[in-house]
Amino acid sequence: VRIRLELSYDGTHYHGWQRQAPGQPTIQSELEGALAKLLNEPIRVVGSGRTDAGVHAVRQTAHFTTTRDPSRYNMLRALGGLLPKDIVVRQAYQAPDDFHSLFSAECKTYRYLIQTTRLPPTFRRHYVYWMDRRPSLNALNAICSTLLGTHDFKSFQTGGSEVESTTRTIKALRFVRREASLIEFRITGTGFLKQMVRNIVGTCLYLERNNLGPAEMQEILQARDRRAAKDTAPPQGLYLWRVFYPENLDKKCRKI
Amino acid sequence: VRIRLELSYDGTHYHGWQRQAPGQPTIQSELEGALAKLLNEPIRVVGSGRTDAGVHAVRQTAHFTTTRDPSRYNMLRALGGLLPKDIVVRQAYQAPDDFHSLFSAECKTYRYLIQTTRLPPTFRRHYVYWMDRRPSLNALNAICSTLLGTHDFKSFQTGGSEVESTTRTIKALRFVRREASLIEFRITGTGFLKQMVRNIVGTCLYLERNNLGPAEMQEILQARDRRAAKDTAPPQGLYLWRVFYPENLDKKCRKI
Repeated sequence: VRIRLELSYDGTHYHGWQRQAPGQPTIQSELEGALAKLLNEPIRVVGSGRTDAGVHAVRQTAHFTTTRDPSRYNMLRALGGLLPKDIVVRQAYQAPDDFHSLFSAECKTYRYLIQTTRLPPTFRRHYVYWMDRRPSLNALNAICSTLLGTHDFKSFQTGGSEVESTTRTIKALRFVRREASLIEFRITGTGFLKQMVRNIVGTCLYLERNNLGPAEMQEILQARDRRAAKDTAPPQGLYLWRVFYPENLDKKCRKI
Repeated sequence: VRIRLELSYDGTHYHGWQRQAPGQPTIQSELEGALAKLLNEPIRVVGSGRTDAGVHAVRQTAHFTTTRDPSRYNMLRALGGLLPKDIVVRQAYQAPDDFHSLFSAECKTYRYLIQTTRLPPTFRRHYVYWMDRRPSLNALNAICSTLLGTHDFKSFQTGGSEVESTTRTIKALRFVRREASLIEFRITGTGFLKQMVRNIVGTCLYLERNNLGPAEMQEILQARDRRAAKDTAPPQGLYLWRVFYPENLDKKCRKI
């Protein structure tokens, strides 16, 4: 039986999503450990994609297969007792056999939070990127809009990742003010390269700070070279917000 | 020279405000250590009062005296570099010699946050008390209003504390809805006994849950016995919000 999970996690204390060497806690390994204990069989979980160390998820999607009858378990409540408090499974579905959290994903939304106050945050220090200046939203939006559409995003890919193609489609992106001193960057696309969102945010902030604009962003994009891009924004401001799947697959998922 | 500080802290990783045995980190000991390093002399800090382990402060007030000339230091910036990130000094003042953070305090405001969602919070787990039900605000406000005014609050004092009088004056208190699933309790009074706010919140929630009302709260108050009161709400929802001093003292404090 194939099970689909929707989960949120606080990435602060983890070495990212992806299973690592033993002793390095990751979201995937915690989830697999809890599921194996619950179902009493080895479980391999597939996520919609990786998140880096310190990066959060409001809604990550994952799937696994089990030989057990899922209707025999109160999955959400049982996992709540088995998982650490910073990983929360929010929905569980029995999914069709052709549902694959990675390959079926159509697009993803990320959000990135920037706090702009004179002094650093006390309570949000693991949940926002803090800057002691207030960037211009108009300038940031003019810069980032250059990236809308289908492009080769090689300049925004951090090295060490092997992918066939570095072409992706950005469907929407913009900076909005969420509170007086809190800016939110939202980006939706068909897929994202390694640290692509953090490289885009860091580069937008760098260009805005130096009074550069869309023309320079265009040059960076066309260089297809990581060395052309600028800063990488830190991980703690980044949230995987939602993963989108084809409607016909969603419809075949039944809550358990 | 007497210095007054306003600071915020995330109490999650501390054994409360008050200095303890070595090896037990507290807000006071971290602050004293940072100030001693900055000013190169031993410093004893006096706070407006203690906060328990896990309890937060949005604005705690403290003072200390130093033989150094405070104008020679960029106090906020220097302390920012010396203190851990979960303690942030937000203001520093040169204060009159008769300013005393504990004895001069006229009243204090605390806030207590309660999240009411089906599933537990992922990101706010150290910053709210989570309940999977939605209590009635009207019922809670009817219950808590019994406590308004001057009373002997012995029923709401956790043992192990020796104070001369257990009489205090509550100037204002109420439960308000801050977000769809977030309730905030606000209380202002001339002083608070050990765990008094947490005992009041826990007792209000207990009475509401059991369909009891102001009459039962009145009985508990009049019993003057801790055993009469009910639950103690957990520390992570509690924030010391502000400490108030006489206007003439505030006016004599000069920002440094």
